[in-house]
Amino acid sequence: METALQRFLPAPEIVPERLHRAMRYAVLGGGKRVRPLLAFAAGELAEADPARLEIVAAAVEIVHAYSLVHDDMPCMDNDVLRRGRPTCHVEFDDATALLAGDALQPLAFQLLAEHVLADSPAAQIEMLKILAMACGSRGMAGGQAIDLASVGKTLSLPELEFMHIHKTGALIRAAAVLGACCGSGLDAHEFGRLERYANTVGLAFQVVDDVLDCDASTATLGKTAGKDAAQAKPTYVSILGLTRARALADELRAEAHAAISSFGASAARLRELADFIVLRKF
Amino acid sequence: METALQRFLPAPEIVPERLHRAMRYAVLGGGKRVRPLLAFAAGELAEADPARLEIVAAAVEIVHAYSLVHDDMPCMDNDVLRRGRPTCHVEFDDATALLAGDALQPLAFQLLAEHVLADSPAAQIEMLKILAMACGSRGMAGGQAIDLASVGKTLSLPELEFMHIHKTGALIRAAAVLGACCGSGLDAHEFGRLERYANTVGLAFQVVDDVLDCDASTATLGKTAGKDAAQAKPTYVSILGLTRARALADELRAEAHAAISSFGASAARLRELADFIVLRKF
Repeated sequence: METALQRFLPAPEIVPERLHRAMRYAVLGGGKRVRPLLAFAAGELAEADPARLEIVAAAVEIVHAYSLVHDDMPCMDNDVLRRGRPTCHVEFDDATALLAGDALQPLAFQLLAEHVLADSPAAQIEMLKILAMACGSRGMAGGQAIDLASVGKTLSLPELEFMHIHKTGALIRAAAVLGACCGSGLDAHEFGRLERYANTVGLAFQVVDDVLDCDASTATLGKTAGKDAAQAKPTYVSILGLTRARALADELRAEAHAAISSFGASAARLRELADFIVLRKF
Repeated sequence: METALQRFLPAPEIVPERLHRAMRYAVLGGGKRVRPLLAFAAGELAEADPARLEIVAAAVEIVHAYSLVHDDMPCMDNDVLRRGRPTCHVEFDDATALLAGDALQPLAFQLLAEHVLADSPAAQIEMLKILAMACGSRGMAGGQAIDLASVGKTLSLPELEFMHIHKTGALIRAAAVLGACCGSGLDAHEFGRLERYANTVGLAFQVVDDVLDCDASTATLGKTAGKDAAQAKPTYVSILGLTRARALADELRAEAHAAISSFGASAARLRELADFIVLRKF
């Protein structure tokens, strides 16, 4: 994945150099690569060609990286630390960070358009649509807007869930679905189960994020810990408390396993990933 | 076009309402609609179905609108007036403007992916790729980065041209090419001539923009006049002076006409558009 991302990003010596350096900085700065792992794991289930999965995984990770760059900006979360390094706008400047995000987003669509990823071009167009909707105002960007509007407010658990289904869930779901679209091994029912799995691990990911924000150190996380409470953001911990939030993460992990229980060994990586997402310490 | 844009944008009562209102504000705020006009005119040349052209024209205009929202932000050009109204971040707030732009961009890709626009799905994937490249770091976003880097510098005429070929030229070229892709009336040579026309009117558009920024009033322009000089931005006027800049616009207009001289009546709108772009007063 790291090698592929290196290759898909514009070289730093190509004009405009500073923009390309900022784009590379934003994407190549480490991270857990959960979305690529999901795309690969879902693709394995669907018997997809790994060469196709590499493209899809990179596209989704590039979208994720762009969203982090914009989320960290002063007018949004105003954060200075990400993946143990200065955020993009701190390392470069606000305008360059804004443009790096703006340029990363279409790079993801370009990747999905310039490689053969599905057994028919019509199916590939459907994949482009799935990514577009996951990125848009009723997907990730919309979730971020709901998040912004919720600062300082008390949300109910369903409202919090609604926010996360958009903010992080949409792209996590897209990672799994797009991975599976690269193969042809799944029927509609199996696709449905995979989507249920993806929705569940997406929520689990966020619950664990909230727990870790409250529970772990900045050094371990590589990003500012305790930020949610400091910004008066509603979280699973603020609504449920730490103990019940941890219990919810475990329940979601079990649900994720249940969703794919009818699959055999080909879902092994998906199972491992559900465990990783819930049991991770960073 | 206005009706189509209304329809393609998410309704203001859909959650997240504020984001959707900001997206609509950014796109439906008037403007010359030069890119849609170009897509329609090029489509007419290629005997394209107007229903397809409506989609392509809307997608390109939505990308343009997003780029204006981000360009106007405090960390970029920091402008308060656009199309005779407060800019998006002034009317809403910086975070909402950032997200509105972020959500408009994938909406353009969604439009190109969810309607049948070409005679084959493979050709339509090529259209998605063309839009992605026009938006990216070697297209519009890259041009904006070069623009930022040039503030306070002296550029040569070729350097200025290089900037504009990216900053405004890439999307203007995409508008014409994507319009033509909706039809099947053009052979490769004719496509080449259309591209030359589009490159030329793209540059002409920018030269005239620079002349008007120096020559017209804020009231006429609906955006802050005299901004380039105030921000020490290199322009055709700062490099050539007003008289030679005006002469260059006329030369480019003649070049644009020459590029499509072999076409007959089907290029009538393209000719009118070249005239409009150069002779406009706003």
